[in-house]
Amino acid sequence: MQLLENERIDDLELKGLKLIQDTKAFCFGIDAVDLANFVTSKNEAVVVDLGCGNGIIPVLLSAKIKYKKIYGIEIQPKVAELARRNVIFNNLEDSIEIINEDLKNIVDRLGKASADIVVTNPPYRTSGCGKVNVDDSKAIARHEIACNLEDVIKNASLLLKPLGKFFMVHRPDRLVDIICTMRQYNLEPKNIKFIYDSKDKGATHVLLEGLKGGKKFVVVNREERR
Amino acid sequence: MQLLENERIDDLELKGLKLIQDTKAFCFGIDAVDLANFVTSKNEAVVVDLGCGNGIIPVLLSAKIKYKKIYGIEIQPKVAELARRNVIFNNLEDSIEIINEDLKNIVDRLGKASADIVVTNPPYRTSGCGKVNVDDSKAIARHEIACNLEDVIKNASLLLKPLGKFFMVHRPDRLVDIICTMRQYNLEPKNIKFIYDSKDKGATHVLLEGLKGGKKFVVVNREERR
Repeated sequence: MQLLENERIDDLELKGLKLIQDTKAFCFGIDAVDLANFVTSKNEAVVVDLGCGNGIIPVLLSAKIKYKKIYGIEIQPKVAELARRNVIFNNLEDSIEIINEDLKNIVDRLGKASADIVVTNPPYRTSGCGKVNVDDSKAIARHEIACNLEDVIKNASLLLKPLGKFFMVHRPDRLVDIICTMRQYNLEPKNIKFIYDSKDKGATHVLLEGLKGGKKFVVVNREERR
Repeated sequence: MQLLENERIDDLELKGLKLIQDTKAFCFGIDAVDLANFVTSKNEAVVVDLGCGNGIIPVLLSAKIKYKKIYGIEIQPKVAELARRNVIFNNLEDSIEIINEDLKNIVDRLGKASADIVVTNPPYRTSGCGKVNVDDSKAIARHEIACNLEDVIKNASLLLKPLGKFFMVHRPDRLVDIICTMRQYNLEPKNIKFIYDSKDKGATHVLLEGLKGGKKFVVVNREERR
């Protein structure tokens, strides 16, 4: 695989998988790995990743869960192209399809109730909140510029079959927004896991599993890293 | 202080405070102590405890926070009477007033926006969920028979001044109900603390601090006991 300017290859340390990353663009963090580890699938599932970036989550999931097909949706043409190259680089063309599309339009393309699992590592920060990166590509990955939390959850719910599963990683400071919006769109939170990096600080990330049309009952857990 | 049948005296191990408990009625647990430890007050506050039971939280708070007056609201006449005896037993008649009233009517009595702080250790279980204790007094303390979560949160919000604080202990499995209802009634969750009793199990209790009209930003923390 030919590398372009500013690109590097990272070893994912999982069944020989590797990922090309553009060092000037958004590179994946531990949160993406946590999300991939959090996803569970009992049957061969149709999986959709809303906002797949360079393809890290589809690539990791291909080695972690049972699936029929994994779709990665990415609005930025250049980023989607890198994701496609990562699929080819890992010989996953039969398993993963990258679609360069706005996630707000993806239901028209894939169909309502077409997915068993939707995963997402969406932009964490509201637009206009905090420093916005001058590089558009990074800003779109980090801030709610191209889509907001409600867009993500609403479209995830539309994509999912009844009792389909939704998995998301996000920041704990948005927990109330997340939980209220998930319930609003009938994705009942069933499992919430907080990640702590330090003994004396609040949670740094939160993983949520929602069930479309699920009963009102949630389990809360945590992982400590120190 | 004369003890009645089935009553015992517990030492609260805090500034000489003691509590008479009816061993046949609902006795306080570690969750009530956690809640009292979670409450903070910067100024001399008017505090209301919605569903005060035998008075454990008002009595503990009297030794822990700055306050002007603490009101304990209890719907059950016999339980309210025990709470009153506990106030007298601890010489707290000038600090704590127990009101035998349905918390759904308490705004008429104390007034809208009359409180700086509302605390509550409400019934955890929905009515008709799980084993209902045959003893009415315990059932009313444990199950949402006399009031439900929405009644508690709605009336807390009505009682509180703008930027008044709401403190609650509850079960994590009700987290989604709690958070959605708090936001619905303008008590924005600002601080959430999960309590874990075991390394391998989910949270056993959750403490929540809400701010009436507060900004949308929450910190999530935890305490491990093992």
